[in-house]
Amino acid sequence: MSQAFSPSPLFERVERARRRKHKFRDPQITLAHGSGGRAMHELIEGLFLEYLRNPLLETLEDQAVFEIDQRVSAVNGNGHTRARMAFTTDSYVVDPIFFPGGDIGKLAINGTVNDLAVSGARPLYLSAGFILEEGFPIDDLKKILASMRDAAAEAGVAVVTGDTKVVQKGSADKLFINTAGVGIIETAVRTSASSAKAGDKVILSGTIGDHGTTIMIARGELELETDIESDTAPLNFLVQEMIDEASALQSLDGIHCLRDPTRGGVATTLNEIAFGSEVCIEIEEDLIPVREAARGACEILGLDPLYVANEGKLIAVVGAGIADRLVARIKQNHYGQEACIIGEVKAEPAGIVAMRTGFGGTRIVDMLVGEQLPRIC
Amino acid sequence: MSQAFSPSPLFERVERARRRKHKFRDPQITLAHGSGGRAMHELIEGLFLEYLRNPLLETLEDQAVFEIDQRVSAVNGNGHTRARMAFTTDSYVVDPIFFPGGDIGKLAINGTVNDLAVSGARPLYLSAGFILEEGFPIDDLKKILASMRDAAAEAGVAVVTGDTKVVQKGSADKLFINTAGVGIIETAVRTSASSAKAGDKVILSGTIGDHGTTIMIARGELELETDIESDTAPLNFLVQEMIDEASALQSLDGIHCLRDPTRGGVATTLNEIAFGSEVCIEIEEDLIPVREAARGACEILGLDPLYVANEGKLIAVVGAGIADRLVARIKQNHYGQEACIIGEVKAEPAGIVAMRTGFGGTRIVDMLVGEQLPRIC
Repeated sequence: MSQAFSPSPLFERVERARRRKHKFRDPQITLAHGSGGRAMHELIEGLFLEYLRNPLLETLEDQAVFEIDQRVSAVNGNGHTRARMAFTTDSYVVDPIFFPGGDIGKLAINGTVNDLAVSGARPLYLSAGFILEEGFPIDDLKKILASMRDAAAEAGVAVVTGDTKVVQKGSADKLFINTAGVGIIETAVRTSASSAKAGDKVILSGTIGDHGTTIMIARGELELETDIESDTAPLNFLVQEMIDEASALQSLDGIHCLRDPTRGGVATTLNEIAFGSEVCIEIEEDLIPVREAARGACEILGLDPLYVANEGKLIAVVGAGIADRLVARIKQNHYGQEACIIGEVKAEPAGIVAMRTGFGGTRIVDMLVGEQLPRIC
Repeated sequence: MSQAFSPSPLFERVERARRRKHKFRDPQITLAHGSGGRAMHELIEGLFLEYLRNPLLETLEDQAVFEIDQRVSAVNGNGHTRARMAFTTDSYVVDPIFFPGGDIGKLAINGTVNDLAVSGARPLYLSAGFILEEGFPIDDLKKILASMRDAAAEAGVAVVTGDTKVVQKGSADKLFINTAGVGIIETAVRTSASSAKAGDKVILSGTIGDHGTTIMIARGELELETDIESDTAPLNFLVQEMIDEASALQSLDGIHCLRDPTRGGVATTLNEIAFGSEVCIEIEEDLIPVREAARGACEILGLDPLYVANEGKLIAVVGAGIADRLVARIKQNHYGQEACIIGEVKAEPAGIVAMRTGFGGTRIVDMLVGEQLPRIC
C-alpha cells in the first residue's frame, strides 16, 4: 500500500460516471433497486431525495442526527438546551425468516441498533411494525418475538411502541418487520461518510460475507453443507468502547467514519465513503478476513465476499495515530476479536476504491452493480 | 345523558370478560388480528406485550413518551436536563393505494403525525421504510412520494431517514410503507387512555366513517357512486391549538385523553378509554356527526359508522369546565369545523361504553369484534 497509485483513464471514466447527477429513468422497480448497490443509490438519490429533500435526509447516512432544541421551562427550570439524537429505520424482508445464527427478529433489532451505533449514539428505544400474512403460524411468531426480546436485552434497548397489520394470504410473504430507533449522542463524536481524510486507516471488525452466504445457503437452492452462520450482532458496545478509547487518547475527533457494511457489502460501503469524502480508499485483499466456509460458499455461489452483506461488522475510518489502539480495543470485544486494519485512505484518485490483490495487481472495487441477492435482510 | 345508567347483569358479564387476562391461544394469524378490534388487542396484550414487556410498551398508547436524560456537558455546559419526547410507528398496507382524498403516502405521513400529536407532542421528524414489489410502476411511486412531500409540508415535519426493500413479484402487494416519528412535548400536558374522569366531556372533532367507507367503495367491489372521500389529515395544529386554549384557561391538566379513532373506529377508541380509565362513557347517537354519503354507504355495506376507521379525526376527553371553550377553538381549525361534544364520562359501570340511541334506548357499544375491513390503512 505504500506504492504510489496513479489514476488511469479507466479510473477517470469511472469517476466521471459517478459524479454525474443521478437521473432516475427506470420505468419500474426491479430487484436491483433493493440490492444496496448502485441501482438502489440511483433510486434513493434520483427519486426519494428529489421528492423528500431536506438537509437531514440529504446526508444519506444510515441515520439522521439532529439536535433537540428544548425549551426546558416546563420541565425543569428555564432556558434552552440541546440534545443530539440519532433516528433510523429499516424494514426486514429476509427470506428465509429463520436461518443459522438468527432470524428476522434478531436481525431487525440488531440492524437498527447498529445504524444508531455507527453515528456514535447510545441506542435507547426501538419501534416495531409487523406486517403479517394471514395464516402465519403463531408458534413462529413466538419464536421471533423471543428472539427480538433476547436481542433487545443484549443490546440494552427496549421496544417501546409498535404496530400490527395483517394482509390477506398471498399479499405478503410470511412477515415483514420494520424497526425504527432513537438514540442519544452523549459525546462530541461526529462521524459521516464524508469525513475520511488522506492518511486515515480503514479498520474492519472481523470476517466478511458470513450473513449473505448463510442466507443463500439457507434458501436451500444449493445442496451445500457448511457450518457457516449469520454474523448478526449488536455493535453498540463495541462502538462505545472505541469511542471511550479515543476519548481516553484525547482523539475523539480521530474517529471519522463508522459504517456497518450490510447490503452491498464492504465494497459498497467503502465506495460510499470514498465518494462522500472525495478520497481514494486502498485496501489489501490479503488483509481482509474471510472464513474458509464463507470463502468456499462464495466460490461455489459465484459471489465476491466483498459484496456480500454482513450484519455484525463495522468499518471504521480513523486517524492513523489512533488506529492500532482502536484495533486493540475492538479486539477485546466479543464481536471484534478478528478486527484488523485492511487499508488506508489516499487523496487521489478521489471517489475510487482500489484493492491490491493477492497476486500483486490492483483492481478497482466498484459499488455493487445489479442485484446480487434479493431479500438478504 | 342526565338519567342514571344502572349496571345490568349483561354489563357485568361484559366487564368480567374484559378484565380476564388475555391468554393468546389462536394457532395462526387471521385478518381479525389486524382489525384494530378485540382480536388485535388480544394479540398485542397476549403475545407482543408478553415477550417485549417494558414500562413504556405496557402503556399500550399509540406512542411511547419518554424523557431524554441528557448529560449536556459535551454540548453546552455542564449538568443534566430532560426533554420529554414521543415516538411512534405505523405500517401502511392500504388497498387500494390510491383512493379519493389521498393515497398510501399521505396516509403514512398523517397517521404518524397524528399518533405523535395526540400525546401533546410537536411532531418533528419522520422515517419512511418502503417495501416495494418487483415491477411496481415508478410513475405510481412518484405520485406517492409527491403526496408524502405535500403531507409532510402541511404538517411541518420532515422525512429525515429511510429505507428501501424490494421483494419478488408476488411476495408483497404493490407497496407497503412504514413511517415512524419522533416529536417533542413542550408543555406539561399529559394525556393517556387511563386519565378520563367521571364528569368529563367527550369531544369528537368531526364526522365519522369517511375513510373506511371510501376505501371500501374504492375497492370497486360494490357498484356504488358517492362523492365521499377519505378524511386523512394532519391533526397536530388542531391539537396544538387545543393545548394553547387550555393553557390560556390555566387548565392544561383538563385535557385528559386524546386519541385518533382509526382502525376499529370511535367505538373501539372509546372502549380503550373506558377500560383504561375504569369509567363508563356515555355517548348520544344523535350527536355524532356522520355525512349522509357515509351513512348511506355504511347502510348498503352493512357497517356501523361507529366501527369504521377515520384518519383525520380526534377524540378528546376533557374536564367539563373547559369543554365548550375547547370545542369552540377546535371549530376554528379547518379540520375541526364540525367538532362537538358527543357524550360524557360516568363513574359506573366501569369499562363500558353505552350509547343512547335515536329511539331513546341504550345499548352497549363494544369494541370491534372480528374483522371488519382488512387493509383499511
